Amino acid sequence: MEYDLIIIGGGPAGMTAGIYSARQKMKTLVIAKAFGGQMASKAVDIENYPGFEKISGFELIQKFEEQMRKKGVEVIDDEVIELKKESGLFFVSTKREKNFQSKTVIFATGAEPRKLSVPGEKEYVGKGVSYCTTCDGPLFNNKVVAIVGGGDAGFEAAIFLNNYASKIYILEYGDAVRAGKDNQDKALSSGKVEIIISVELKEIRGEMLVNSIVYKDRNTNEEKTIKLDGVFVQAGYEPATKLLEGLVDLNERKEAMVNFETLETKTQGLFVPGDANSGKVKQIVVACGEGAKAVISAYKYIN
Amino acid sequence: MEYDLIIIGGGPAGMTAGIYSARQKMKTLVIAKAFGGQMASKAVDIENYPGFEKISGFELIQKFEEQMRKKGVEVIDDEVIELKKESGLFFVSTKREKNFQSKTVIFATGAEPRKLSVPGEKEYVGKGVSYCTTCDGPLFNNKVVAIVGGGDAGFEAAIFLNNYASKIYILEYGDAVRAGKDNQDKALSSGKVEIIISVELKEIRGEMLVNSIVYKDRNTNEEKTIKLDGVFVQAGYEPATKLLEGLVDLNERKEAMVNFETLETKTQGLFVPGDANSGKVKQIVVACGEGAKAVISAYKYIN
Repeated sequence: MEYDLIIIGGGPAGMTAGIYSARQKMKTLVIAKAFGGQMASKAVDIENYPGFEKISGFELIQKFEEQMRKKGVEVIDDEVIELKKESGLFFVSTKREKNFQSKTVIFATGAEPRKLSVPGEKEYVGKGVSYCTTCDGPLFNNKVVAIVGGGDAGFEAAIFLNNYASKIYILEYGDAVRAGKDNQDKALSSGKVEIIISVELKEIRGEMLVNSIVYKDRNTNEEKTIKLDGVFVQAGYEPATKLLEGLVDLNERKEAMVNFETLETKTQGLFVPGDANSGKVKQIVVACGEGAKAVISAYKYIN
Repeated sequence: MEYDLIIIGGGPAGMTAGIYSARQKMKTLVIAKAFGGQMASKAVDIENYPGFEKISGFELIQKFEEQMRKKGVEVIDDEVIELKKESGLFFVSTKREKNFQSKTVIFATGAEPRKLSVPGEKEYVGKGVSYCTTCDGPLFNNKVVAIVGGGDAGFEAAIFLNNYASKIYILEYGDAVRAGKDNQDKALSSGKVEIIISVELKEIRGEMLVNSIVYKDRNTNEEKTIKLDGVFVQAGYEPATKLLEGLVDLNERKEAMVNFETLETKTQGLFVPGDANSGKVKQIVVACGEGAKAVISAYKYIN
């Protein structure tokens, strides 16, 4: 089975590519672990996607996904584990041991939450450690939680968690939090939020579930413990570009280098729209625009 | 009065830039003759803007415009007639003799319908000659019209005009029409549409209103006349970049050359997103994505 186009990833770039591929009548397969990308974990409503004054990430994902599916694009729920190009064709292998061939590939895996890489983090994922406030926040009703990261994402997480948690620590590595004043004011208005700066997280501890964290106060070098029930990691994102090594030039942040007019990489027929590339503007509508461009570029490459 | 940003143009790129400028808290002025750009003249529903399975151009414009206005951006209804940069500042003059200064400019005028440049065309605009089927189509109820241009836009115009006109000629300069089969089938299904190929339009004639056209049959060199009431020009678009001459490199199609990562031109602080630049993918969502990118680039340029 040979496709004209395989789209890897189900975020805004991938779904827009899916919508456009149908329009171009390309034989297309979309492979995605899940739909929505970072939209799925947004803790506040989206207000800057043109066409919707205010919409939740979930609702917007649903609209994109339905629109794509109604166009008749073939979609499978799987994870790509290998991508290679041989004799002008791309070969894609998945975790469920499927193999596909395609003339072109749009690699739109976006970015994934950055891990803290401290002891206990991996062990307690789903047992108190979360990277998605909107997914898991409601599980922490009347509980004590910490948010790791004092940027806008961290404070937006706190705004959301104010609806559930009884106490929220915001832990920032630097000497000051980095969120905009608006978000700070909104988060602090509940009276439940306590900001702690100069925090170097050392360990997440627990038994069956998380019950505490240990951190070093970077000013005093003292080691301290906080008893809590949940840890929300808001330490930014890193591009999911591991499979591109060898095929694509990656910058020091592991973002794919592309021609921004076509989204093509140094491997002909391989395109990287959205947050996985080195573009500095990481926004939903930018990813969408690049997804559309990538499809037209793929179409031109074939024809 | 000095602005951080003046946005010129009210199409998808300009309106998205307006939405984003508010988010960046930049002191912004939007100057537009009208809102919607080419969306306003689309003869069929939009089905490939992510988030809406099917929406008319008018509805989508309204959503964009309301969203922008609610963000509190200053908007004036005027036409820019001069743009220059002196001592690091941009100076913008309008038809209504207003003058503005700004640190940065986003030039998002898009593209305008290409003129036929035949005798009678200019004289009969609004008196039978139209560039906008959705705007003017309903005026031709039970009338005879011609569409000049046998591409997709021409056939989409015919699909729309099938609701009104009693007879529709589609005139194509080449030896075959260029529209997709889908659009051809839909347009022809009414039985009202007659395609004429190898047409070199010579003149549009009338008295108070248009009453006929004269064309040369390029195969036989015969000159022929068609009696009709309206002429819809669907001969493509050309970028509205006249004001950029001297400030920006233009290609042979008069499109602005930009860095597609930032949308910046060779004049620092001047950005051209959307259909006015040399990008090959002329799509609403692409213009929107570029509008957002241009704002973030302008913000970085100032800070």
